[in-house]
Amino acid sequence: MDNIEKPYVIGLDLGGTNSVFGIVDARGEIKASTAIKTQAYADVNDYVQAGVEALQPIIDVVGGISQIKGMGIGAPNGNYYTGTIENAANLLWKGSVPLARLFSEKLGVPVALTNDANAAAIGEMTYGVARGMKNFIMITLGTGVGSGVVCNGQLVYGSDGFAGELGHVTMDRTPEARQCGCGKKGCLEAYCSATGVARTAREILEKTDRPSLLREINPKDITSLDVAIAAGKGDEVAKEIFEFTGRLLGEACADFTLFSSPEAYVFFGGLTKAGDLIMKPIQESYDDHVLPMYKGKAKILVSGLSGSEAAVLGASALGWEL
Amino acid sequence: MDNIEKPYVIGLDLGGTNSVFGIVDARGEIKASTAIKTQAYADVNDYVQAGVEALQPIIDVVGGISQIKGMGIGAPNGNYYTGTIENAANLLWKGSVPLARLFSEKLGVPVALTNDANAAAIGEMTYGVARGMKNFIMITLGTGVGSGVVCNGQLVYGSDGFAGELGHVTMDRTPEARQCGCGKKGCLEAYCSATGVARTAREILEKTDRPSLLREINPKDITSLDVAIAAGKGDEVAKEIFEFTGRLLGEACADFTLFSSPEAYVFFGGLTKAGDLIMKPIQESYDDHVLPMYKGKAKILVSGLSGSEAAVLGASALGWEL
Repeated sequence: MDNIEKPYVIGLDLGGTNSVFGIVDARGEIKASTAIKTQAYADVNDYVQAGVEALQPIIDVVGGISQIKGMGIGAPNGNYYTGTIENAANLLWKGSVPLARLFSEKLGVPVALTNDANAAAIGEMTYGVARGMKNFIMITLGTGVGSGVVCNGQLVYGSDGFAGELGHVTMDRTPEARQCGCGKKGCLEAYCSATGVARTAREILEKTDRPSLLREINPKDITSLDVAIAAGKGDEVAKEIFEFTGRLLGEACADFTLFSSPEAYVFFGGLTKAGDLIMKPIQESYDDHVLPMYKGKAKILVSGLSGSEAAVLGASALGWEL
Repeated sequence: MDNIEKPYVIGLDLGGTNSVFGIVDARGEIKASTAIKTQAYADVNDYVQAGVEALQPIIDVVGGISQIKGMGIGAPNGNYYTGTIENAANLLWKGSVPLARLFSEKLGVPVALTNDANAAAIGEMTYGVARGMKNFIMITLGTGVGSGVVCNGQLVYGSDGFAGELGHVTMDRTPEARQCGCGKKGCLEAYCSATGVARTAREILEKTDRPSLLREINPKDITSLDVAIAAGKGDEVAKEIFEFTGRLLGEACADFTLFSSPEAYVFFGGLTKAGDLIMKPIQESYDDHVLPMYKGKAKILVSGLSGSEAAVLGASALGWEL
């Protein structure tokens, strides 16, 4: 029961390159933070040791480990049920890595772990625009398209801990569908991730003669950021790419509504920085495609958390549930 | 607390034509049942009065209303949150009908209401093949394709009480997609409902010269039962229709898994009587299309409840939750 007194949680945003730790209070304020290089540790035990050493001074800042209720970790392929990272393609550690247990043993506090998009959903529910919502869907638009589904106020983890991979719903079942990195064809992620946006740009430049600022860039170097910058300058092709991307996302969300009829969709990630260029087509296409009985019900929102802090906040929010 | 003593619940399966009432014990045994004609009552108050009068003798059989814990109703367009039926196309009562309240006032017991597919899911979880499961998806193959989604041991009702309309996910986004009764095009229901199966049959007979027992029937009179009978006799075209239907269902389920990674899919309704003719293609297509990380996890099952009793049992199961 003494947990009631503990005012802080630790959040760890474990990415392929960097691992960012933060100590967070109940209002979602990051009191102190630190970071280590994820890729510098081929052995996960060395990684945990380095993490704990980096954490020590910032734990001291808030009054020592007795002030910490728990720790939450957001990591690629994180499994909430087992506290393990399973076969993450972008990490050096292979197989099943019991990261929650390893940190818990070293720190002496309970540790929970989930995947990055689920952590983002919990962060949004705890500190962001989804506060008070019992049913919403988080969509993260990054290198891939991730998702976190909240029904009846709870994250949906499913039977195996891996529910909520909406980036891989099939949007195109024709033979022309794009190949996705997962092995399937026509996945939402193949079109609406940052890499999907760059791919759309390359396709349009290749297949048409239309003038565009994007032609000044070597096609294979084009990124979604380049497309956003060109669109910001009024480039018609770039604007159309966002229109296409947004409309496909809206169409996908219209189908997701059939599943859980959420109160809102919360979008997060670099692509949302394009603002109305992408959010307006999402909203319009959603309205066009959603079943009449759901029309006008779900809100289409952009994350309320600042990009650089959101991942750590999201992970830390898991710590309150322990 | 005296509810603990009450050994029975009432179930009402409210269909467009008939309304079947049953009194059910905790083991799922229907102790007594009765029925009235739904369409005979243009005024819902008269309907409730007639229902209560029909119920009285079977309530007496089990020892009177003091033995009844509550009542559950499964009805088209039923909303669990409000206990109302909303704009049901096949019923005479228009607008929002507060059926749960009307029965509760007349009977003096709590009454809950939900749509037919959700009732089927609760029935399966309480008395059928989904006993003990915390995550599964019920798919009902009838005139339409209905669904009930269970996550974390709870029915998913969503923000408005209308979650779980998976019959309307878009399976075909090409211009050739079939028109669905909902106003959209390419919905799963337009292909995989009983009416969808009949439509597939008519299309194949029209577009090809292939010999088939189905050619003995006037095309517009062909039903899914005719297709099942022909398939049972070894008719190649009829078998292919079930193969097509099953494969599309398997493909749809592969996408549903991305949402909630269920332990099982439970299929219910007339089409499942075709047995392996439809269930085998569902299983094979599911295995072909599901994301590698989910392969081999979800079971593809047929409802364990007998068709005639399942709807009443499903509705009654709601009564235990009150």
